[in-house]
Amino acid sequence: MSLLRQFQRHPAPDFSAYRRFIVAGRHVGWVRPALMERLRRFAHCFEADRETLRLHPGLAEPPARSAALAEVVEALRNEGLVPGWRGELYPVTTDFFAEPLLAIERASAPLFGTLAFGINVNGYVGRGWGMKVWVARRAPSKAVDPDMLDLLVGGGQPLGLGIEENLRKECWEEAGIPAELALAARPTGIITLLQERAEGLRVDLQFNFDLELDADFRPVNQDGEVAGFECLPVSDLLHLLRSTDEFMYDSAIVNLDFLVRQGFIGPDDPEYLPLVAGIRPPLPYASAGDTT
Amino acid sequence: MSLLRQFQRHPAPDFSAYRRFIVAGRHVGWVRPALMERLRRFAHCFEADRETLRLHPGLAEPPARSAALAEVVEALRNEGLVPGWRGELYPVTTDFFAEPLLAIERASAPLFGTLAFGINVNGYVGRGWGMKVWVARRAPSKAVDPDMLDLLVGGGQPLGLGIEENLRKECWEEAGIPAELALAARPTGIITLLQERAEGLRVDLQFNFDLELDADFRPVNQDGEVAGFECLPVSDLLHLLRSTDEFMYDSAIVNLDFLVRQGFIGPDDPEYLPLVAGIRPPLPYASAGDTT
Repeated sequence: MSLLRQFQRHPAPDFSAYRRFIVAGRHVGWVRPALMERLRRFAHCFEADRETLRLHPGLAEPPARSAALAEVVEALRNEGLVPGWRGELYPVTTDFFAEPLLAIERASAPLFGTLAFGINVNGYVGRGWGMKVWVARRAPSKAVDPDMLDLLVGGGQPLGLGIEENLRKECWEEAGIPAELALAARPTGIITLLQERAEGLRVDLQFNFDLELDADFRPVNQDGEVAGFECLPVSDLLHLLRSTDEFMYDSAIVNLDFLVRQGFIGPDDPEYLPLVAGIRPPLPYASAGDTT
Repeated sequence: MSLLRQFQRHPAPDFSAYRRFIVAGRHVGWVRPALMERLRRFAHCFEADRETLRLHPGLAEPPARSAALAEVVEALRNEGLVPGWRGELYPVTTDFFAEPLLAIERASAPLFGTLAFGINVNGYVGRGWGMKVWVARRAPSKAVDPDMLDLLVGGGQPLGLGIEENLRKECWEEAGIPAELALAARPTGIITLLQERAEGLRVDLQFNFDLELDADFRPVNQDGEVAGFECLPVSDLLHLLRSTDEFMYDSAIVNLDFLVRQGFIGPDDPEYLPLVAGIRPPLPYASAGDTT
């Protein structure tokens, strides 16, 4: 079977089914026409024409924008349109390092098709074909993808937290990795993900890290979100990715990136180029000069 | 100074200054209007309209296409339009693993804006911030970029040679690396490059490898194309990339990719996202589903 099966779980979005969402003249998201219709009643918040949804220019500063959108998202939530409410604020921007244009509830990001940021850690032991990779089995109680295989550590990047701070927090919560060990994780680049979901378009940019672990290291979950851990030989990891959908989607792509960078998938694989390209599709924002 | 300076050496091409080159219904290249005018006299070879240059559909098989184009390229060479003649055939295709549509002289690839493939090896010693990276100083006699800094090993991917075979060949010729050591190089992914040159558009897709070397390893050039080697601390490498144009362009980008993957450039750098994106811009072919 083909490693490309992982990309086929979410085919390339059909952008003709979306309209651009513009804030302060910048293209930062994608909304479905049906949602645009529902948003017309919030005339103090949006201006809509056939092609675009614009946040009202009267909302000139981030706090005012965030407050207005919070009211809208709360109304949509009451109508059952915001599945998986998180109670966590995400920045809205296509430039991670700039001041965000506003903040919105994490679960509503796909409704507006805004870019969500996250971090991932591949924890591994050993080198070469003797390498093993730690994976987590998600708790059956998780709202998203219960019981599926996951990375050792991964998490969203909420507003107001630095990447290094989030890395330490997630390493501790998900796997009981102490701060000094977490900070030994090496940044290795990014992946991007585009997924059409029932509620809208999910677009992710995730910062990836590799963390080499001692053979006697044992992860211990702290927040009840993990049912257990396993340290898989890379050949088993390759087999799972080639033949099953056991990994949650993001984690599968992060693992493919790891296996490419570490040389376990190489140009002797005739699918190498589509595989490498699939790991980081260009982000669908008109002026996202800061992204692929 | 900024690491982005390396990308600024070749700003994004202006595609409105080019016309599509089509072979067998596939978009495989870009030509300048002035070249299209010159090519009109080869009526048995091309069909041109305002927007596209098509290889004549009567040239239905790769050998006939290659022969016809060889005659054209020879004529252009006699008119001084093919600088840096190599006497080496390159495949014309946007799908590396498929049968090439035809073959052309390497030096003429930019005239037709076709995709050129290559390989690179980053040779390094040690780990973490104590790591050193081998670099070569190109011979003063080289036609392209004499005296500039280069990778330990890098080379074009000519027609009919497998990547592994080319890796062994180039490792030996450029640095005296024996076959068994060359084959320990780990594939790590690809970079892509777009450069507007006097003669046309140069588009490259290069397969990258990392090769860990012992501290007592010494490269020995075999083909006279290298003036000398140096083993640079990563901090010196970063400094050179940040502040100088001493590296030839391709090598600079391959080194940036290496430094990102190895964690020496991370998301604490506010230029991280444009930097990572710049390493692998999307290839400019309409149906290049096999590439970023």
